[in-house]
Amino acid sequence: MSIKNVSGNKVFGGWHKQYSHDSSTLNCAMQFAIYLPPQVASGAKVPVLYWLSGLTCTDENFMQKAGAMRMAAELGIAIVAPDTSPRGDDVANDDGYDLGQGAGFYVNATEAPWNKHYHMYDYIVNELPELIEANFPVTDKRAISGHSMGGHGALVIGMHNPERYTSMSAFSPICNPINVPWGQKALTAYLGTNKETWEAYDASELMRKATNFLPVKVDQGGADNFLEEQLTPEALKQAAEASGYPLELNIHEGYDHSYYFISSFIDEHLRFHAEHLAK
Amino acid sequence: MSIKNVSGNKVFGGWHKQYSHDSSTLNCAMQFAIYLPPQVASGAKVPVLYWLSGLTCTDENFMQKAGAMRMAAELGIAIVAPDTSPRGDDVANDDGYDLGQGAGFYVNATEAPWNKHYHMYDYIVNELPELIEANFPVTDKRAISGHSMGGHGALVIGMHNPERYTSMSAFSPICNPINVPWGQKALTAYLGTNKETWEAYDASELMRKATNFLPVKVDQGGADNFLEEQLTPEALKQAAEASGYPLELNIHEGYDHSYYFISSFIDEHLRFHAEHLAK
Repeated sequence: MSIKNVSGNKVFGGWHKQYSHDSSTLNCAMQFAIYLPPQVASGAKVPVLYWLSGLTCTDENFMQKAGAMRMAAELGIAIVAPDTSPRGDDVANDDGYDLGQGAGFYVNATEAPWNKHYHMYDYIVNELPELIEANFPVTDKRAISGHSMGGHGALVIGMHNPERYTSMSAFSPICNPINVPWGQKALTAYLGTNKETWEAYDASELMRKATNFLPVKVDQGGADNFLEEQLTPEALKQAAEASGYPLELNIHEGYDHSYYFISSFIDEHLRFHAEHLAK
Repeated sequence: MSIKNVSGNKVFGGWHKQYSHDSSTLNCAMQFAIYLPPQVASGAKVPVLYWLSGLTCTDENFMQKAGAMRMAAELGIAIVAPDTSPRGDDVANDDGYDLGQGAGFYVNATEAPWNKHYHMYDYIVNELPELIEANFPVTDKRAISGHSMGGHGALVIGMHNPERYTSMSAFSPICNPINVPWGQKALTAYLGTNKETWEAYDASELMRKATNFLPVKVDQGGADNFLEEQLTPEALKQAAEASGYPLELNIHEGYDHSYYFISSFIDEHLRFHAEHLAK
């Protein structure tokens, strides 16, 4: 459980830091970033928002581009941003940006060659929080959010583990991966061709069958290039209606798939999670 | 004076857009970014903050990493971020990150081969504002700010043109380039070995001799790796004391040279400029 500090930057009175560690879940070295708000300097323990990034991202994209730390500092929330897949020369990869390194899809792969390292679901749910809670001044209150592939991850992980998170949210999530090209490509590679195994990683399937409701907020840009082919929020909306899941889904006219969209609404997500983390 | 739209993203109710144009001052194609706040959608003309970036940057770094658009939207200020040098295969360059493309130092070069394209001073003072004011719903109220090499540029340009700007500010500026390695290398290349010609581009020299005072705010990280060797804010402070220039200089303990520092204090700079732009 040892972690090694890689970098540190003072931001809004707190600290953004990067750490590396050897992951026993992923069988490789991993890097993550954490923002510790100024409240920890006076001995406070703070709750944690886990942020899952989208395709091609590392631990850096969210921390550099989302503009989240101002509000995290104000609210006293730590943010943890892991990488989006196992990494390294020994780790299986693919030429596409949407499979392999940078595209772990937050699943536990069962198919070779991916099953040797690609266990991002277990990493996010178990190993990473254990590491964070052992090494930083944080409470065991957790929220989870993410963007695109990471929005898919946040919703799937939140719905499978309502006892571990106070709330979940997503920007532009892949809502129904079993029925769109990104999801079908990744799930075929990681889980094989039996589509029944895919459903455990499909937010719309999970939401349709859910009986235990976690507070959830989803924001989607109306001018997102991936909206109709890959993201399909309508599927999530219909699933929520079927089960009575109290989904807050907002479509924002004119906004696209970029971090400019995330930055415009990240404060609302932080306030949403702060409210539930405080309960 | 024709400009070509390259990209657009809705952000905080306004628009971040990138444009390319053929610069007659720099003799090459250039790209700039502009943030237009939501007020322009209802027909308002807004004042403009020009942001000059540091070494190695393009028009993108500030827009992606500074977190400035939230407050610009609130205050109704446009932000223009130009590139940091002329660009292209035909433009002279150097192997170092601190000379040539990405390192124009906001001077008018007089020495070959640099004098063919490197006229960033004239580009920022004249051509770019003319282009912006001809093509966008902006007033002729201008403020100027920047970081590191761009902080040097903002202070030098502001002090030479107090009638063209309402206010100037800088993060971590190169305060006294004629006496530090970054400045000496660039000024020797661009202006030649006669050091008297360098003084026109030295903020501390200009501030020491100034009689016409522009509102000015400078913020510097106390843990900045470049503080003592390259930035030397003490020189600027002494110059201000000599001339009575009302310099507001703040050293922030623990902060470094990165955009994490800029993001932590950019709101204060925007409010500072908004106050003066409104006069």
